[in-house]
Amino acid sequence: MPGNIANRVRRLRAEMRLARAAALLISHPPNLFYLSNFTGDNGILLVEADRAVLFTDPRFTTQAGEECSGHHLRIVITRKALLEEAGHSLRTRGRSRKILFEEDKLTVAQLRQARGAAGKRWLWKGTKGLVEGLREVKDQEEISRMRDAARLGSSVMEHATGLVKAGVSEQDLAAEIEYQMRKRGAEGPSFETIVASGPRAALPHGRATSKRLKERELVVLDLGVILRRYCSDLTRTVHVGRASREVRRWYQAVLDAQTAARQAVRAGAEASQVDEAARRVLRGRGLERRFIHSTGHGLGLEVHERPSLGRNQKALLKAGSVVTIEPGVYLPGRGGIRIEDDVLVLDGGSETLTSAPRELMEL
Amino acid sequence: MPGNIANRVRRLRAEMRLARAAALLISHPPNLFYLSNFTGDNGILLVEADRAVLFTDPRFTTQAGEECSGHHLRIVITRKALLEEAGHSLRTRGRSRKILFEEDKLTVAQLRQARGAAGKRWLWKGTKGLVEGLREVKDQEEISRMRDAARLGSSVMEHATGLVKAGVSEQDLAAEIEYQMRKRGAEGPSFETIVASGPRAALPHGRATSKRLKERELVVLDLGVILRRYCSDLTRTVHVGRASREVRRWYQAVLDAQTAARQAVRAGAEASQVDEAARRVLRGRGLERRFIHSTGHGLGLEVHERPSLGRNQKALLKAGSVVTIEPGVYLPGRGGIRIEDDVLVLDGGSETLTSAPRELMEL
Repeated sequence: MPGNIANRVRRLRAEMRLARAAALLISHPPNLFYLSNFTGDNGILLVEADRAVLFTDPRFTTQAGEECSGHHLRIVITRKALLEEAGHSLRTRGRSRKILFEEDKLTVAQLRQARGAAGKRWLWKGTKGLVEGLREVKDQEEISRMRDAARLGSSVMEHATGLVKAGVSEQDLAAEIEYQMRKRGAEGPSFETIVASGPRAALPHGRATSKRLKERELVVLDLGVILRRYCSDLTRTVHVGRASREVRRWYQAVLDAQTAARQAVRAGAEASQVDEAARRVLRGRGLERRFIHSTGHGLGLEVHERPSLGRNQKALLKAGSVVTIEPGVYLPGRGGIRIEDDVLVLDGGSETLTSAPRELMEL
Repeated sequence: MPGNIANRVRRLRAEMRLARAAALLISHPPNLFYLSNFTGDNGILLVEADRAVLFTDPRFTTQAGEECSGHHLRIVITRKALLEEAGHSLRTRGRSRKILFEEDKLTVAQLRQARGAAGKRWLWKGTKGLVEGLREVKDQEEISRMRDAARLGSSVMEHATGLVKAGVSEQDLAAEIEYQMRKRGAEGPSFETIVASGPRAALPHGRATSKRLKERELVVLDLGVILRRYCSDLTRTVHVGRASREVRRWYQAVLDAQTAARQAVRAGAEASQVDEAARRVLRGRGLERRFIHSTGHGLGLEVHERPSLGRNQKALLKAGSVVTIEPGVYLPGRGGIRIEDDVLVLDGGSETLTSAPRELMEL
């Protein structure tokens, strides 16, 4: 995707001009990949108005050449610490100038190393979310990858719900889920797979334990894959054996809330409105207090990205964003229900990328 | 292990006194766990001479209470940013004093947040490896866990070598290996499992690909588990079908180098001497230039710890350390051979914790 990379770097340079910065140092791996296509373990990217340089070590000489060719990136291979080399390359550039760095990613020791190597003429200024802001809107290549990751996650979910029965342990189910991800071509899970059954389903982030599934329990399955570096993230809740009327009522409330929130997604909608769409349904069913987290989050190269779909989020959704929609209710001692899909924001509406059945399954 | 925690905090306070520091802020998760037993996702530990406080959020109220009880830790539950809360708690303490922070872990933004909240009377001073230095020597509880992790890794390796045959893909083998880890009770792999076959075995860190194993190829399997938070890390190299005389000669050289290095391990030995023991054997077989990395590294809560067993490492090995011993030879275009075990350093000798067979297997 050479064209995409060039376009991203161009947009980044526009942001740099707005900030009156002559250079920007990128150390956060997903941001580095986004701007260079480089997937090696050790890299630093330095962007200036007239050049962009990737610094890496000799282990990645071939790989950097292959991945970054045609992107107008210079590649510097060095055995020195990359930040020292990057800093040093700034020494002879211009007069007193401003350089931006990712202040929520770079450690204090890393900043000192780069700054020391660059010399005193550079003014180092922390910035946050500059590249993350660009990443919020996905291009066609990214949307295609996210569609594939969502499809793969959905197929693993369908396989996993087929394995739910009394006597199986949460851990075994999680192991089987992650095995299936890899068998089907994923690089791995995008987060530690959640299998939470019975009272444990009341924990929004319950880890899979040695507990075995029992009759008449809810089971929350929350899983995601990384495929060609992009994440999916989806949740289904199933019931072992026949559900009580009460459980069905809760389930229907969450499903209605999730549907309402998905229907509220469109370019220009305020993030908090999507959250409120889910919350309003649960309020009407007397369950609002049981919904203890926000409705969703952005998704892409990382499993938690912008925007956040919470109560006080004033940001407007942008066409090309991908967000999760995942309301849930949690009843301490009894269990929990969450339904989550990945949704692409479009002008005037949305497209749900994940596809496993959403009706209550009694297994 | 309440006794252990108290002992660790006591040793840490001795280091703090040497550095004339009134407080130390711990943010690196393995260090935080080591000093508090807390395993939650979000925590900050503040250690002073007369108190130690764990800051976490309401999701972890119960967990922190259970994990940290009896360790003379105060627990503060807050909805605020933890570093802000920790900094704020320093405001009313003493006069102008020195506080240490982990400069290679804390980001620039995190330091600013904590420092701003603490007020101007505190002098913030970066430090590196203070807790990591304590972690180098394992106590009995840790050694017991590492023995279990090594045993589990060894059993998975024996299972995996049994699956090697022409036609199986590297990816499928890696998926099966990680599945077996979880089935046998591991939290997961301690690093991305390496399966590198044929010419790809010449890459010391080759990721598993869709490539299928072929007759007359070497296959490097490098795997490790995390069990009760402690890591193992071991490598075996097998041959698909009968090996040529040349491959056998290379294999024997690596095995002899590995044995010599393991025999050189004892408390008081210089790290570089262990490395030289392996290198000397390979030099004698004309393979020194093919050994392109160091002989090993420490192992514990993280998969790469102190000490480093490389050419210029003057540090003396300490009884109670666990190190990997993993010489290898890499022949571009032809393949590679590496044999790796985990070794506990003892007074006057060592104990090898991993146990899968080391003789050349022709499968």
